[in-house]
Amino acid sequence: MYETIFKRRDVRRFRSDPIKPETLARLLYAAHHAPSVGYMQPWNFLVVTDALLRQQIFNHVEAERIRAGNGFEDERRTQYLKFKLEGIREAPVGMCVTCDPDRAGAAVIGRNTIRETDVYSVCCAVQNLWLAARADGIGVGWVSIYQNDCLRAILGIPEDIQIVAYLCIGYAEEFVDEPELETAGWRKRLPLEELVFSDQWGCPATTELLTALEARREELG
Amino acid sequence: MYETIFKRRDVRRFRSDPIKPETLARLLYAAHHAPSVGYMQPWNFLVVTDALLRQQIFNHVEAERIRAGNGFEDERRTQYLKFKLEGIREAPVGMCVTCDPDRAGAAVIGRNTIRETDVYSVCCAVQNLWLAARADGIGVGWVSIYQNDCLRAILGIPEDIQIVAYLCIGYAEEFVDEPELETAGWRKRLPLEELVFSDQWGCPATTELLTALEARREELG
Repeated sequence: MYETIFKRRDVRRFRSDPIKPETLARLLYAAHHAPSVGYMQPWNFLVVTDALLRQQIFNHVEAERIRAGNGFEDERRTQYLKFKLEGIREAPVGMCVTCDPDRAGAAVIGRNTIRETDVYSVCCAVQNLWLAARADGIGVGWVSIYQNDCLRAILGIPEDIQIVAYLCIGYAEEFVDEPELETAGWRKRLPLEELVFSDQWGCPATTELLTALEARREELG
Repeated sequence: MYETIFKRRDVRRFRSDPIKPETLARLLYAAHHAPSVGYMQPWNFLVVTDALLRQQIFNHVEAERIRAGNGFEDERRTQYLKFKLEGIREAPVGMCVTCDPDRAGAAVIGRNTIRETDVYSVCCAVQNLWLAARADGIGVGWVSIYQNDCLRAILGIPEDIQIVAYLCIGYAEEFVDEPELETAGWRKRLPLEELVFSDQWGCPATTELLTALEARREELG
């Protein structure tokens, strides 16, 4: 379990081997067993295997990627543009994961004060699927550079349904040791002890917890 | 891994045994290894062990819970009010998980078109923690009935930080076989085959995938 969590990666390069329906069913059931606010299970899974549709999505994302590159300066832009999204075409399965806010009617337990909890549930489903895939040796990449309206048009998704994720799913060329953005020097993993507070925002964790965090970091290497 | 996914529960009743710092450190590192858009790691973990603070949070949530009950009618209301949130006081550890949208500066890879992807990352971290806890025999309950401003005031969380989750963490009295809301007859698990589409919204999954989903459902029992 812990090993799967630590070895999960955002995969960008895929082999073209197909994914068996039996395997896909395993991943989908893992997602379906995610927690959901008021047990509303607000998710849908749109499995995209048609090559033309995946090409359309790729074309759109590619345009957005280049546009986004202009938001970075000089070296950072050059580096940014090296991060490719070919996985959208290469992975045999695309999956659009959505949230239906009206799935369980108007009154949902636990969603009365914070409406977005339905979307949070869908994210938990994505993470379940991601971990299950890793356990089965399958790679998943989460693409988030797209305009909702374009993806909606390509896949026929109604206005009242919220798009949460577009995933590329396929056998990974490899599972690298550390996140690609870390290897590329884009960003480092932050020191966890700086992200943990005790009782009040900004108050460092207790000495006991800090010691335990340090020991765990050394253990993980 | 799959077993952990299927046996994870939203836990509401806890034993009072403390959680060792070593154990908490394991859970926190599992959360910290979640995926995040542009590797921004936007999360913070505010560990709440002070009994008075947990009592304050309980008082607020309890008032909200009774208020929310009025949103349901007759029998549904009576049933709703039976779902207690004593876990806020009983679990030895409370944890507020937040999102800092400015963690990685203005330009974040993959967050240029859809701003909320930072919050999605935090939800993945919560799910990692939840599964890691289950693997270690520890129960987690996600409380979402609160006003952001009240929780913010009690825990001193700044305005520019988004509250994503408040978790109760402790050794579970038991891990039940199915979700509590299902047992109580509140809602049933939806048939997965109706939630999966193929290539276009509303188009049923392929025959192969439907067959595989059915086989998997029978396998899971």
